[in-house]
Amino acid sequence: MPIVLEPIAHVRGGRMDVADDAWGAVEARIELDAIRFGPEALAGLSDFSHLLVVYHFHLADPRRIETSARHPRNNPAWPKVGIFAQRGKNRPNGLGVSVCEILGVDGTTIHVRGLDAVDGTPVLDLKPHMKGFEPRGEVREPAWATELMGGYW
Amino acid sequence: MPIVLEPIAHVRGGRMDVADDAWGAVEARIELDAIRFGPEALAGLSDFSHLLVVYHFHLADPRRIETSARHPRNNPAWPKVGIFAQRGKNRPNGLGVSVCEILGVDGTTIHVRGLDAVDGTPVLDLKPHMKGFEPRGEVREPAWATELMGGYW
Repeated sequence: MPIVLEPIAHVRGGRMDVADDAWGAVEARIELDAIRFGPEALAGLSDFSHLLVVYHFHLADPRRIETSARHPRNNPAWPKVGIFAQRGKNRPNGLGVSVCEILGVDGTTIHVRGLDAVDGTPVLDLKPHMKGFEPRGEVREPAWATELMGGYW
Repeated sequence: MPIVLEPIAHVRGGRMDVADDAWGAVEARIELDAIRFGPEALAGLSDFSHLLVVYHFHLADPRRIETSARHPRNNPAWPKVGIFAQRGKNRPNGLGVSVCEILGVDGTTIHVRGLDAVDGTPVLDLKPHMKGFEPRGEVREPAWATELMGGYW
């Protein structure tokens, strides 16, 4: 059964065009839908240092959605891995999940740094980053994942 | 503009009923929609220790969705904070985001531990947990968030 979602906010400012790397210093705003939400919906958010953002890769081409396996970034030096074993944008449902730094909250606007989403991106959810939701136990990942992220921020 | 998503998998096994706490030892399966996806969609996933799961709080009552502020878990000992400054399930769009441990991958099934979603939960996306997507810089959170998570896992 399909699940129908309505954007609760949009990314404004920051980068205008999609890019693979160097997102760390990018500053942008997340503007809540001010028809449905008031400043109360963000009350207490500035007590957190980081924000988890769920957004929609609205510029991804539906014809390019991968449902099987491919080389991350089409780089043949990295193994062919399943779409659910990588984080590329050409994925079923086109959801991005990312953690960025909260610079400040001003009414229904959040100022952030290091959000890897371009101007105009629809935002589907915002959650505070809590230490308690970090992975339990030792984190292990393959070498390609560490290499890929080398220049990301 | 609404965004229409199709579940890519479902949670099977684990807990049958919603509970606030003690999710850490719960083991369950995530079963891909085998009509649309084959084992290739999970190729390489077992090289990661942890999985990020985006799911839908399908049992949440739409009439109870909070769009403003409330006490987390309705506990008056904790401050009234905005719905986007907490992680409760009665939220616009009803999305859950959680990181769990990968026990093994078997065809189109992933065996996991510590996923805080009940049997039957629709899954909208799966991503490998990469160290590179962890928060950059020091993480800060209010005392109530640390307290609330005390018995969660």
